[in-house]
Amino acid sequence: MAGNTTGTVFRVTTFGESHGLAIGGVVDGCPAGISFDTGVIRYELGRRKANSELHSTTRHEMDEPRILSGIFEGKTTGAPIAFMIVNKAHDPGAYHQLRDAYRASHGDYGWHMKYGHFDHRGGGRYSARETAARVVAGAIARQLLAHYGITVQGWVSGIGNIQLDGYGPYTSAEVEASTLRCPDSDVAKAMMSELEAAFIEKDTLGGLVSCVVNGVPAGLGEPVFDKVESELAKAMMSIPAVKGFEMGSGFKASTMRGTAHNDPFNTDEQGAVVTTTNHAGGTLGGIASGNPVCFRVAFKPVSSVKRKEETITHDKKKRVIDLTGGRHDVCVVPRAVPVVEAMAAIVFADLILRNRSARIKQNL
Amino acid sequence: MAGNTTGTVFRVTTFGESHGLAIGGVVDGCPAGISFDTGVIRYELGRRKANSELHSTTRHEMDEPRILSGIFEGKTTGAPIAFMIVNKAHDPGAYHQLRDAYRASHGDYGWHMKYGHFDHRGGGRYSARETAARVVAGAIARQLLAHYGITVQGWVSGIGNIQLDGYGPYTSAEVEASTLRCPDSDVAKAMMSELEAAFIEKDTLGGLVSCVVNGVPAGLGEPVFDKVESELAKAMMSIPAVKGFEMGSGFKASTMRGTAHNDPFNTDEQGAVVTTTNHAGGTLGGIASGNPVCFRVAFKPVSSVKRKEETITHDKKKRVIDLTGGRHDVCVVPRAVPVVEAMAAIVFADLILRNRSARIKQNL
Amino acid sequence: MAGNTTGTVFRVTTFGESHGLAIGGVVDGCPAGISFDTGVIRYELGRRKANSELHSTTRHEMDEPRILSGIFEGKTTGAPIAFMIVNKAHDPGAYHQLRDAYRASHGDYGWHMKYGHFDHRGGGRYSARETAARVVAGAIARQLLAHYGITVQGWVSGIGNIQLDGYGPYTSAEVEASTLRCPDSDVAKAMMSELEAAFIEKDTLGGLVSCVVNGVPAGLGEPVFDKVESELAKAMMSIPAVKGFEMGSGFKASTMRGTAHNDPFNTDEQGAVVTTTNHAGGTLGGIASGNPVCFRVAFKPVSSVKRKEETITHDKKKRVIDLTGGRHDVCVVPRAVPVVEAMAAIVFADLILRNRSARIKQNL
Amino acid sequence: MAGNTTGTVFRVTTFGESHGLAIGGVVDGCPAGISFDTGVIRYELGRRKANSELHSTTRHEMDEPRILSGIFEGKTTGAPIAFMIVNKAHDPGAYHQLRDAYRASHGDYGWHMKYGHFDHRGGGRYSARETAARVVAGAIARQLLAHYGITVQGWVSGIGNIQLDGYGPYTSAEVEASTLRCPDSDVAKAMMSELEAAFIEKDTLGGLVSCVVNGVPAGLGEPVFDKVESELAKAMMSIPAVKGFEMGSGFKASTMRGTAHNDPFNTDEQGAVVTTTNHAGGTLGGIASGNPVCFRVAFKPVSSVKRKEETITHDKKKRVIDLTGGRHDVCVVPRAVPVVEAMAAIVFADLILRNRSARIKQNL
Repeated sequence: MAGNTTGTVFRVTTFGESHGLAIGGVVDGCPAGISFDTGVIRYELGRRKANSELHSTTRHEMDEPRILSGIFEGKTTGAPIAFMIVNKAHDPGAYHQLRDAYRASHGDYGWHMKYGHFDHRGGGRYSARETAARVVAGAIARQLLAHYGITVQGWVSGIGNIQLDGYGPYTSAEVEASTLRCPDSDVAKAMMSELEAAFIEKDTLGGLVSCVVNGVPAGLGEPVFDKVESELAKAMMSIPAVKGFEMGSGFKASTMRGTAHNDPFNTDEQGAVVTTTNHAGGTLGGIASGNPVCFRVAFKPVSSVKRKEETITHDKKKRVIDLTGGRHDVCVVPRAVPVVEAMAAIVFADLILRNRSARIKQNL
Repeated sequence: MAGNTTGTVFRVTTFGESHGLAIGGVVDGCPAGISFDTGVIRYELGRRKANSELHSTTRHEMDEPRILSGIFEGKTTGAPIAFMIVNKAHDPGAYHQLRDAYRASHGDYGWHMKYGHFDHRGGGRYSARETAARVVAGAIARQLLAHYGITVQGWVSGIGNIQLDGYGPYTSAEVEASTLRCPDSDVAKAMMSELEAAFIEKDTLGGLVSCVVNGVPAGLGEPVFDKVESELAKAMMSIPAVKGFEMGSGFKASTMRGTAHNDPFNTDEQGAVVTTTNHAGGTLGGIASGNPVCFRVAFKPVSSVKRKEETITHDKKKRVIDLTGGRHDVCVVPRAVPVVEAMAAIVFADLILRNRSARIKQNL
Repeated sequence: MAGNTTGTVFRVTTFGESHGLAIGGVVDGCPAGISFDTGVIRYELGRRKANSELHSTTRHEMDEPRILSGIFEGKTTGAPIAFMIVNKAHDPGAYHQLRDAYRASHGDYGWHMKYGHFDHRGGGRYSARETAARVVAGAIARQLLAHYGITVQGWVSGIGNIQLDGYGPYTSAEVEASTLRCPDSDVAKAMMSELEAAFIEKDTLGGLVSCVVNGVPAGLGEPVFDKVESELAKAMMSIPAVKGFEMGSGFKASTMRGTAHNDPFNTDEQGAVVTTTNHAGGTLGGIASGNPVCFRVAFKPVSSVKRKEETITHDKKKRVIDLTGGRHDVCVVPRAVPVVEAMAAIVFADLILRNRSARIKQNL
Repeated sequence: MAGNTTGTVFRVTTFGESHGLAIGGVVDGCPAGISFDTGVIRYELGRRKANSELHSTTRHEMDEPRILSGIFEGKTTGAPIAFMIVNKAHDPGAYHQLRDAYRASHGDYGWHMKYGHFDHRGGGRYSARETAARVVAGAIARQLLAHYGITVQGWVSGIGNIQLDGYGPYTSAEVEASTLRCPDSDVAKAMMSELEAAFIEKDTLGGLVSCVVNGVPAGLGEPVFDKVESELAKAMMSIPAVKGFEMGSGFKASTMRGTAHNDPFNTDEQGAVVTTTNHAGGTLGGIASGNPVCFRVAFKPVSSVKRKEETITHDKKKRVIDLTGGRHDVCVVPRAVPVVEAMAAIVFADLILRNRSARIKQNL
């Protein structure tokens, strides 16, 4: 069974290859009656756009989303919401040398072994181009989440060796004020130096994206396999180039003692249940505890390095391929922030609808 | 929609509460014709058993699995394989003080908010007791994987601040030779000191489990949402107490440069396609590359600390609960190794069957 | 992918073979907080029991259901509800002659071709014994539906050539007053004559079950593939021996004209929307219209006829098998009534929970 | 959970409203390497086109399918195949009087109750327009089935009171030679008289479609809930206007005796296993027996009758709506033949891929 659909109640299917006619998707299961604003979609796609300030040499043109169905008189109807983005003019000929060679650390080889052939033009389906469809679906999910007061905010918390600890929180304005989407200006400056150095050396960088989801009501998450962190981890690890995921204290939790890591329950001044710390990152036993949901995602450095690369061909002969002319980013994490947020929004749209069947009476 | 089923072709459903009559599960979608050995199930359950050498004070008795269906004349029939383990005598009265109080860093509160009430007897469904059913299902998955030459081997790679780097590989014998399931005896010794110290101080520890899956054929994994690492991450994050997951170089990849992280393709002496390094951890573009699949899982310290704990009750009053008499582990990671392996086996059993529909001709 | 799970939110998985240790199932996704009465389960299993007045020679003993999980202090907890029925003493040796022969109109041959081997002892997994697990799951579904005022009532509307037209309605008392579960005593008498004649001639009969679901709120059903009638048809056709399904006017609708078949909308005395006729059988465009949902199910005659039967063996040799001593019903439809009802209850339990995500605000 | 996706391995999602920008769909899970011919799609869409010889007054223009993804160099790649058909110019103003009124026997009322509002323009999502997307997906499924030698052939076997018994078989040429798609010319003539009479009386007709699937290998079908007949019934009942479904002898089986209905096993001259009759319609115990799969589908008469109709409005006031100018068919069954076939092809594409996981070795 192929895997181009995600979610169980709020279901997102995406389609399209990097150099095909179009990419797009279908959102099925979005409740009727949500005011629908394509401006949200455009804004998020804009955030994902290549940025020449970051020495991004990928296509810079704006993606134009087109809604094909599911919206009537400005509201969702309950019918599937289909959308597409037409791929603009490009030069597939540039990929001619890749017709029968495997690029290091790309999906070429596995894809070839899986399907018996592959679309060599820029990665086809496994190109990061595919994430534009996720951003559109995520923008639809955000409009559902807005009804529940749930918001998603990510930021760049690492580029190369420069990192920004903690889970903020940071506002959208603070994040967007930075070209790198790093809300701490000193850290951002150091990150930019890393990026400039890598650019000059024709190398690439990885990084981290941290993300906080606010407003998540206690109770979301579906034991025992579809816990909040399970669904988030799956969603994040499906983003191209992601190598790691952690909730709250994450890997550091493995070095802590129970007395230090436990988050004691208490009540706040309004009498609401709170915990005095949030090492857990917002879930306990896989179910949301009412705290902010906090997680971090690790991206490997961009695999497309502008150098000559020694590799092998489909018939297992050695070949040197020339990637110096490729159009790629030095570091994707600033552009990955809206992708991480989109996947988180899709996960919580699904979890909030799934939670509606937890009780005999359910008011959400 | 509840979440007690995982997998799409090889599907595992589990049931049962910590202090109910029984726990168990149903494996649907296991192909017919596999020689079935309950010894494999008993062996894996034995590995998960509490160990007094590790100051484990949980119930020590052996779990007795009972196969209810799906096996005939020593082979799988294609019908669902149901199994159960009867819960032995115990003392639910010990949990009386928890009837209306939330334990720190346990699922009590979220569960209460989700379902409107909860089973206070030792965590009910969100107790780690539930993982015994996963181990049984994993032992069934292992017998399917054996037909494909796929093996799963985990080990303890961290307890508290003591860690063992790298992905070995290690043999089953090397791992099982150590009470802690840490295959490096020097590291194991240091870990044991950490554990003793925590025990004396009535505290608990977290840790790391590393795992390698060998024999995975190139091509497994279902783009774009059900990649190998997506499915593994989801499975691992669904294990109680897990806070982080990483593939191959993982979080460290975020600090590396592309030229250092890329795994160049080459051929080995037999002419097979190989990569000279495996930073990726065995997948590229979400699809298995034929390399060993390597990942690491981070566990938080055990939340049940043998102390008095200040918390609040269901009606938001402060209360001190006395957990000094609880039966809990100082550190779960040695017992978590077979659970991690079981979930990995379930994931690959599913991926190998899903991959059968990738091509018009498929010989696996 | 195997097919032993049905439903999307209210999910039922069944397991077990006719002559294995036990049959049973798991209901996942049942909301928490429903008062749970095992008496309902026992009552429904009692209705499915063999009846010697109908010359049923199958095992007469009562099935004892055992609930393994998901219930605490008399209520559903939101955890999966597992149940089992231990298979009592029996004589698998009676099936020895079937070890390598295909019975006419049984699943033996297809099962053998599918799985490469098969459990010859009374049909294994494809025995109608499996429907006992459906009846238990249906009894759980009924308790959920009771919260919504939805009730399911079936009856025998055909045995052989004797039929009872229309959709009643009939009460449970009217149906259960008849050994044959036919609520019209004159028709029932004629049916009994048919049955006696077939019994004397050592032959078997088919029949019809009609069913009405009352209290279904307008709006249930999930376009475009999971319409009310789609889900019902799938559920009914999965019952052993079922050959046909129709909604409302059904096959007869194909011979009617639009002006005669259309159900005009109007308001009743309370001002509620009604239709003056219900040819549709309670759904329009696949969505419940608020009218009673009415459908009919056709069963073929019992395939196990007490005669000698000429057939072929696995190695394609002719053989005469002696079925004169078999324990089988002359006609199953009276016992099939609770099975039809159970599957209908499972379908509506699922549809009512699925419908909760149709709107941004949903009060059900 | 919405229901716009069908299938488990070969998965079809459709989208689009009657008067929206476009209708279309995504096929996920189609194996790679299938030669892809858009001519097959155009041919099937042509068969579904309105026909003025049948007094069809619906839009006559040809639908132009556009493949957006999943095909490369003339073959399927394993990536999702997305397609769309742009809706041509039309007059939604014609539907103004329906903005707040419920048409008899249409989905208007249920849709309104489900989603809180509805798209009044010609039925929106529940218009039969939606079936064009099914025909495209079915044409893709046919190309997969061709690799297995499986073919699907339907025909009109009833219009009003005129019926054609039996399951033929008939060739495509025999069926297509008739405007009505009824392969018996005498019966077709009588059917045409029925149709003319109804047309003159401004009334509409229902009818039957029979269908045979040849080349189905023994073993397809997934017990116990996803039997061949379960999946077919679900698929057929999801087609607009369908009221009944039967396999093989169907409802007539309910009146037959076991000795008459049983299909004895034998071997043919080549030594292959055959049954001497096929009352079962090609499945036993829900699994294909190697015989042709035969089924029949009942359609109600077209609900849109060209008359004035008394109904009620959203605020429950009486209103007369004038439907004399509507563009509708007198009888849809000739155009429904390719829709029935398409759904059958989708079902078998899914079943054949699902069956690949039935055994440890599987060669299909």
